[in-house]
Amino acid sequence: MMESEDDLDSLLRTIVDLNHACAILEWDQETYIPDGAHESRASQLASLRAVAHAYATSERFANALNRAEESTDPSDDRRTRLLRVARRDYTKATALSTDLVSRLALAEARSKDAWRRARENDDFDSFAPHLNLLIELNREKADALGHDGERYDALLDQFEEGLVTSTVDGVFGPLRDELVPMIQAIDDASQLDDSVIRGDFDEAKQWALSKEIAAAVGYDFQRGRLDKSAHPFSTAFSIFDVRITTRVDRHFFSPAFYGTLHEVGHALYEQGIDPSLDGTPLADGTSLGMHESQSRLWENLVGRSLPFVTWLMPTLQRHFAGTFDGVDPERFYRAANRVEPSLIRVEADEVTYNLHIMIRFELEKALIAGDLSIEDLPEAWNEMYERYLGIRPESNADGVLQDIHWAMGAFGYFPTYTLGNIMSAQIFDAAKADLPELETNIRSGNFEPLLTWLRSTIHRYGRSRTATEILEEVTGVGIRSSNWLDYIRRKYGELYSTSL
Amino acid sequence: MMESEDDLDSLLRTIVDLNHACAILEWDQETYIPDGAHESRASQLASLRAVAHAYATSERFANALNRAEESTDPSDDRRTRLLRVARRDYTKATALSTDLVSRLALAEARSKDAWRRARENDDFDSFAPHLNLLIELNREKADALGHDGERYDALLDQFEEGLVTSTVDGVFGPLRDELVPMIQAIDDASQLDDSVIRGDFDEAKQWALSKEIAAAVGYDFQRGRLDKSAHPFSTAFSIFDVRITTRVDRHFFSPAFYGTLHEVGHALYEQGIDPSLDGTPLADGTSLGMHESQSRLWENLVGRSLPFVTWLMPTLQRHFAGTFDGVDPERFYRAANRVEPSLIRVEADEVTYNLHIMIRFELEKALIAGDLSIEDLPEAWNEMYERYLGIRPESNADGVLQDIHWAMGAFGYFPTYTLGNIMSAQIFDAAKADLPELETNIRSGNFEPLLTWLRSTIHRYGRSRTATEILEEVTGVGIRSSNWLDYIRRKYGELYSTSL
Repeated sequence: MMESEDDLDSLLRTIVDLNHACAILEWDQETYIPDGAHESRASQLASLRAVAHAYATSERFANALNRAEESTDPSDDRRTRLLRVARRDYTKATALSTDLVSRLALAEARSKDAWRRARENDDFDSFAPHLNLLIELNREKADALGHDGERYDALLDQFEEGLVTSTVDGVFGPLRDELVPMIQAIDDASQLDDSVIRGDFDEAKQWALSKEIAAAVGYDFQRGRLDKSAHPFSTAFSIFDVRITTRVDRHFFSPAFYGTLHEVGHALYEQGIDPSLDGTPLADGTSLGMHESQSRLWENLVGRSLPFVTWLMPTLQRHFAGTFDGVDPERFYRAANRVEPSLIRVEADEVTYNLHIMIRFELEKALIAGDLSIEDLPEAWNEMYERYLGIRPESNADGVLQDIHWAMGAFGYFPTYTLGNIMSAQIFDAAKADLPELETNIRSGNFEPLLTWLRSTIHRYGRSRTATEILEEVTGVGIRSSNWLDYIRRKYGELYSTSL
Repeated sequence: MMESEDDLDSLLRTIVDLNHACAILEWDQETYIPDGAHESRASQLASLRAVAHAYATSERFANALNRAEESTDPSDDRRTRLLRVARRDYTKATALSTDLVSRLALAEARSKDAWRRARENDDFDSFAPHLNLLIELNREKADALGHDGERYDALLDQFEEGLVTSTVDGVFGPLRDELVPMIQAIDDASQLDDSVIRGDFDEAKQWALSKEIAAAVGYDFQRGRLDKSAHPFSTAFSIFDVRITTRVDRHFFSPAFYGTLHEVGHALYEQGIDPSLDGTPLADGTSLGMHESQSRLWENLVGRSLPFVTWLMPTLQRHFAGTFDGVDPERFYRAANRVEPSLIRVEADEVTYNLHIMIRFELEKALIAGDLSIEDLPEAWNEMYERYLGIRPESNADGVLQDIHWAMGAFGYFPTYTLGNIMSAQIFDAAKADLPELETNIRSGNFEPLLTWLRSTIHRYGRSRTATEILEEVTGVGIRSSNWLDYIRRKYGELYSTSL
């Protein structure tokens, strides 16, 4: 029996639904799962992922995709874009043998466990063999995915379509050369006082504020929810169910507040995808970099701006009776933008953050290329922190062991964080050009014009346009760090009364 | 390539994991899902169920099962029992054509929606065509599953292996003949005062009490959790993740308290299954009746007993400062056991409850047999309530439309509630015979001996023994209502100072 072309859509929906089921199981794993259930959940996820992979690489799917490609009119832009993405996913899924996929899954599961213990005990040596194996497997994966001689390219392309090592080198090198002296200049200036956001902030009140702010900037709680988790994240089970999590630090205001705003940025992107794409592989962020551009835009370019903080103050005063009385917005603004070289990436300020990324990029590139051995890694890490940030980790727990990414087998992922930062400034500048009232809007708590603009220029497309296409359409150029550098120079030059 | 026999185990685990993934999605659907996500969740569940069905009916699975059956030594009891259950599930899954399964799924989804609206608007006529279709489809399903002339037998067997209509008739008829005059006698006696459990009970305190009592009777929060939902339920994602939900009524103490105890009874069963069965189809309750016997045992035979209430009082007084001061256990005991014919099944007391079930059994049997038309159903319902319980629904919302079961296409399900009640008394009598200190234990809050006994005689087997095998092993006889009737006569004769 000859199956109809429609079969492709129903197969795609099944694959999408299976992947979303995995995301639901993972969300539960980070929020509500009982302590004793972690092992059984791991098995359930492994089964579900294997089933999703079997569907995504099945002959039935391949045939349906082939038939759809042959029968689709190239002028049918919508269908053509869907088929392009479906083909890309199929190619990636089939490139990896079932054997390699299961060796990777096993190594990653063991490595995550080993990493948790190693970090707790500050014991890099116990983690080293796991990391070694994952690097070998990622080389094998890179070769299976295919590349033009530079293995790291294949790893980058998993997260940021079309991105190659030379492009990252070309962006990161000059950026680093600008950043290092800027941070030195800030370090020499007199430090900002952040005491207003340090103290004792009732957890329930922080929570209520986070929810109110999320709704105020446009996060739709009818299609989402906010929960607590150890590590904040955003996840989507469909365009109609985009959830965020955050954590609350009783003594520091930023983690819950700016953490929520960051995740809201991710979630606004997913909630803004054209609903007609739901149930297809197009209903997703187009790349990790573009995703990060949205979270950083709301967290930093909006949330850490003076107009935003000016609007925020009465709300803060209402939620924390007494605590913020008489605090002028300028004081809060300075506190929220204090720059200080530190060891931990996730706690880094806007200016130093990208140096944390660059260090990881240099190191993982060298590891994959075989130019750096595992034994030399901790020292290389510490040496780079000293060179770029002027501080040296006293333990591997606060050094090379701090991030889960490598333990998860994610190589080529880190650079997308900095690309996201850079793009966020490019995109925000384009928004300002299109929306002359933007600052005024933000100062009055009217976020709707910005959100509408982001939806129409970026969000709605999902994966039907690549990050490069979107960025070029929005900014007229490709990725470049000058907008971000200009923004940093202006903002922090003023904050620190120094020329950057 | 010839696949190894081990393949059966890994295929079984995949099917089990897919079914548990469905359960996780359903749990979320009842607890935390955002309002806007219901439609996309329905699609995800439909996809997941279809995938699980495809795996469960695949040629690959059939071949693996055949090979395992051929190669298994019949003296290998453990393996033989697994294969028996795997064969039963396979036979049931393949009996229904994909076409029938999808027609049923569609009809059920539409019917549930129509039922919700019909109940809200007290509009049976709008629901009638949906019910009619579901009855036709269930006849078709019964024929596909196979039977010896009595279609309803095939429907019963879905929920209670081997149960046939004539057995239910044989148990229910005499039971009803005893119950109707008993209820009349209770009605003639002077009514019990339940004012002590009616009033204003702080929701957070009810919640805290429910959690404490659940833990006290042995529910393991390391392998479970308690959440809120509109309709209380228990669900298992593995032996290591068995969750319960409840609802809280601010003005009535029973729904949260006894509702939790009921669900805890279900959950203790699932938490008590031999961990070595995890990941196989044996790691589940053996039948709905046996499951209900466990929930009713903890809710009623333990929870509504005077020894339990005696132990409970100080805890109650501690949680609700002031409210229960000076209340003697006897007074609470009488309140918790007040008998009153009512229209709504889920609110019924222990004595009248089974009449609600019998009415549903008689009606659905007649509907499936074609002896009762949909148009005549509401009047038949009302007439039976008048005849058996002496009260007549004033609306179809409080009558034929009150339960979701038929709207979900579940015919043959209701009788298992009464079978569970009957078995709970048989099992509790056996426990008392084996544990002479049982009452003393309960009065002192020591539930461990009873739980250990239930685990060793019932829980640990999961589906590796049938309900009939377990009941005969535990009680020496098959299902019979005399133990339950003796219990009711003794308890309520004393409570109402009348001879029953």
